[in-house]
Amino acid sequence: MADSIGLVAARSKAEATELSAEVAAWLGERGCEVVPEERLGSDGAGSVQAIVVLGGDGLMMRAANAYPDVPLLGINFGKVGFLALVERRAWREALEALVEGRYAVQEGATLAATVRRDDAVLDQGWSINDVVIRGGIRMVDVEVYIDGHYVNTYPGDGMIVATPHGSTAYCMAAGGPILTAGVRGFAIVPISCHSPIRTPFVAPEEALIEMLLANDREASLILDGRHTDELRRGDVVEVRRGVHTFRLVTLATTSFYEAFRTKFNFQIRPDAVPTRRPNQRAQRPG
Amino acid sequence: MADSIGLVAARSKAEATELSAEVAAWLGERGCEVVPEERLGSDGAGSVQAIVVLGGDGLMMRAANAYPDVPLLGINFGKVGFLALVERRAWREALEALVEGRYAVQEGATLAATVRRDDAVLDQGWSINDVVIRGGIRMVDVEVYIDGHYVNTYPGDGMIVATPHGSTAYCMAAGGPILTAGVRGFAIVPISCHSPIRTPFVAPEEALIEMLLANDREASLILDGRHTDELRRGDVVEVRRGVHTFRLVTLATTSFYEAFRTKFNFQIRPDAVPTRRPNQRAQRPG
Amino acid sequence: MADSIGLVAARSKAEATELSAEVAAWLGERGCEVVPEERLGSDGAGSVQAIVVLGGDGLMMRAANAYPDVPLLGINFGKVGFLALVERRAWREALEALVEGRYAVQEGATLAATVRRDDAVLDQGWSINDVVIRGGIRMVDVEVYIDGHYVNTYPGDGMIVATPHGSTAYCMAAGGPILTAGVRGFAIVPISCHSPIRTPFVAPEEALIEMLLANDREASLILDGRHTDELRRGDVVEVRRGVHTFRLVTLATTSFYEAFRTKFNFQIRPDAVPTRRPNQRAQRPG
Amino acid sequence: MADSIGLVAARSKAEATELSAEVAAWLGERGCEVVPEERLGSDGAGSVQAIVVLGGDGLMMRAANAYPDVPLLGINFGKVGFLALVERRAWREALEALVEGRYAVQEGATLAATVRRDDAVLDQGWSINDVVIRGGIRMVDVEVYIDGHYVNTYPGDGMIVATPHGSTAYCMAAGGPILTAGVRGFAIVPISCHSPIRTPFVAPEEALIEMLLANDREASLILDGRHTDELRRGDVVEVRRGVHTFRLVTLATTSFYEAFRTKFNFQIRPDAVPTRRPNQRAQRPG
Repeated sequence: MADSIGLVAARSKAEATELSAEVAAWLGERGCEVVPEERLGSDGAGSVQAIVVLGGDGLMMRAANAYPDVPLLGINFGKVGFLALVERRAWREALEALVEGRYAVQEGATLAATVRRDDAVLDQGWSINDVVIRGGIRMVDVEVYIDGHYVNTYPGDGMIVATPHGSTAYCMAAGGPILTAGVRGFAIVPISCHSPIRTPFVAPEEALIEMLLANDREASLILDGRHTDELRRGDVVEVRRGVHTFRLVTLATTSFYEAFRTKFNFQIRPDAVPTRRPNQRAQRPG
Repeated sequence: MADSIGLVAARSKAEATELSAEVAAWLGERGCEVVPEERLGSDGAGSVQAIVVLGGDGLMMRAANAYPDVPLLGINFGKVGFLALVERRAWREALEALVEGRYAVQEGATLAATVRRDDAVLDQGWSINDVVIRGGIRMVDVEVYIDGHYVNTYPGDGMIVATPHGSTAYCMAAGGPILTAGVRGFAIVPISCHSPIRTPFVAPEEALIEMLLANDREASLILDGRHTDELRRGDVVEVRRGVHTFRLVTLATTSFYEAFRTKFNFQIRPDAVPTRRPNQRAQRPG
Repeated sequence: MADSIGLVAARSKAEATELSAEVAAWLGERGCEVVPEERLGSDGAGSVQAIVVLGGDGLMMRAANAYPDVPLLGINFGKVGFLALVERRAWREALEALVEGRYAVQEGATLAATVRRDDAVLDQGWSINDVVIRGGIRMVDVEVYIDGHYVNTYPGDGMIVATPHGSTAYCMAAGGPILTAGVRGFAIVPISCHSPIRTPFVAPEEALIEMLLANDREASLILDGRHTDELRRGDVVEVRRGVHTFRLVTLATTSFYEAFRTKFNFQIRPDAVPTRRPNQRAQRPG
Repeated sequence: MADSIGLVAARSKAEATELSAEVAAWLGERGCEVVPEERLGSDGAGSVQAIVVLGGDGLMMRAANAYPDVPLLGINFGKVGFLALVERRAWREALEALVEGRYAVQEGATLAATVRRDDAVLDQGWSINDVVIRGGIRMVDVEVYIDGHYVNTYPGDGMIVATPHGSTAYCMAAGGPILTAGVRGFAIVPISCHSPIRTPFVAPEEALIEMLLANDREASLILDGRHTDELRRGDVVEVRRGVHTFRLVTLATTSFYEAFRTKFNFQIRPDAVPTRRPNQRAQRPG
């Protein structure tokens, strides 16, 4: 029986929509049923084997949010692309691997955020990469509690809770660590904290992380880069591991470390030749 | 039936050996069998419920190494004390809780290190906190591989792989993140890396982390602060999750975040009053 | 002949305006002519010996901007206060020292910013602390040139150029160094740069520092915390040493390092007793 | 009249000694008097216009120490080369510029270090790049005083005071800022400080910087990478601007920022094309 594969393309990028038609035809020729975005919305997402996303990490996050728990394979039309792992020119090889079952599914925790105001729930949402409180031009004070324990009060541009998949995004920019896939923990990183006292934390997946806005400055809650709520003094954003799982299709050619090195030019000495050849040892897919 | 409790005291600290006698008597009065260090060595460690350690984090690491997998309760005679969690003056309350069973055991991964030279195994060891390659006055080059994937070549003072329990030690000093207990991952942090390119990684517990000494400079392998081997160019230190588990007795009064804040003066604004009272919410032991 | 002393108080802080009357009376009793803010504006600032500012660092910056080159003595009504150095309760001692001439004037460079759009000058301004390009929720790309040499293109929350006096403000928050008074140089620090490549620069006072907004995202020019211009792609902010000098009244009791340690809780071990007594050696005013 | 030019070559590098003969001949053909190292030692250094150094930054520092105040032009035979600025293959163009007077001399401050033990002077020395206290495997505590003001007590691997020329060396590795030539200040940077409290300082050239070894651990004083003294508890290393000036020959083709970007791969996006062409604006030699 033929596989059923979802297809989502960035509408704002002409090249992505063009490739979308080509991809649909290519998959059809191989006997796959292609489920376009219009039909994924109602009930289709539940039945597809995976969704092919033509776009950048932003679209990957939106697709993950719209069609939770479904494995996603991203063809990168964005800039950096740590979720959309496949380079554009390599789409055929990637889809061949997908259709022939030569792939793995990397599972990542999601973050569930609940905003409480005066003991009532103001809003709820969840994210793949991060939950961020961010101030405007003036500094915000954010109190952080982990499992009910007070950690510190951070004055600055805000505060980030990031998953491993999100750790290469705002987390890294704010000076936080890179958590590679499979680490069971979330990074808690202040943004431009106005203090000489600075060290990022990583808390276990089971932790309850609370961020309380402790002054009267303008502040926003941002989930995966989307502005979600305006916050007020005293508002608490509770962050827990979400019920959904982020599923990312990875291929034999996918190497997180190679991608990190290339996309961020993470090469201290570009001309350094690793002593070990890549094929010298069995590798686990990274 | 009476509990059997091991007792280890820092020999170099007079106060610790003095307290040791007092503790032995106190435990005896409560019907516990006290197993002194001389008898732990042969077979005693396997039968004790826990070992009480009077000393600093250094002694805790040595006890963990000598009596693997046995829960340890440390009365702190050292400076900072993230393993030896109980302050000296609070020893009675702590031992009461131990004797009465009012405690939890926090389990942490250990690190197993294998040194390979010319494809032969040169040495093997394991540690609670960290596995470190450290150069002397001249910079060393260390290549890092994770699961066979080349990550980078780091010139500098060396390289650290740290467990969550070890993340408050050299890892933090080198600019790495604090991994709180329960995070399933190890921090990989270069020491004074001679590059503007710097970001620490956290890899999953299942990862194989390899560090290869790539130049001819003097370098040592250091496990939990103990000098273990002199390394040569081409030597590879393989680090994996160890077979042993580090077991730490935690009490209701133990809070990692409170300890971190106090011991490291991690208080951006010492006069800040947390909005939430500690008793306002149920806390998980931290 | 009597001294002439300006007086500026934060209007939004009742305590500051109250103290203002008291200070005016106190100075009058000592034979000083007090020039209130209303009269400073026209020509008065040129004739005063110094201006006493009752407020926080924000008001100090505004006073410095309104009455350039005049020595300022700040009584701190704000939070941190590195420009408003005198604590409220110590105002009498401070003013006594001022009236009796027991003070020094610390001179600091200012920054002149010119915004160029399509080769025309869009705006000009100057600042005491910093010149900042700051993005909104989405990352901005900023190219930096020093003396015409391209340095790097920084994606992230923006870019800071800071004076020594401003280095304890946003510069430090963004991970930049503290430049103490007397250093002849400006810090150039990216804000939450989305890269593992990160190192702050300090350029000499004579340098021409240019920041070019290189993408289409929303970005603002902020001088000393005041929103000054909305920027567009291609806009260049030229930063040079300004023609004005920031003059800060310092007293024998003023110690920058003491203030830094206290206000930012910069005490690695709060109970550490310095081996050297403060009076053991002659100190330069810090 | 012919110029007199000194010539110093790394003895341990065959290529450098070979090129040395070639360079001597080349200079002789152009009418220069070449003063070899044997003759520089006695009185020759005072009379030469400049010294050509064939070696790495290490040799540049030794030459600067042996022949103080004489302008140096380095042909790089080392790895990174921020003092030895000319690449090997470009030696002819560089020497042509030198002989024809098409060069500038960049002047940099040096550091004078005095070690005091029990109020007696134990040793004195000076350096181009840095004055470093460095511990062994166990942490050292270093108290820092600036102009007699206590700054902090730093536990860790040690402490660095660096000049602008030295800021790209150990200073950067320890997380300190890059001070470009012309900045009048010295960076004070702890090495792997065992604290979440961390921020580097830059003090003015006129400052007296004192580092006091405050515990009993093994520690060394290292000037420009050379081990100079073993230190004991209570020893004070006083650092001031030295009487000598470090003089570096710079050419029109020399750009610090270009060199920094290339040698350290300081390119956040290697494919980014700077909006401004290099020739679009007059450049100051960097």
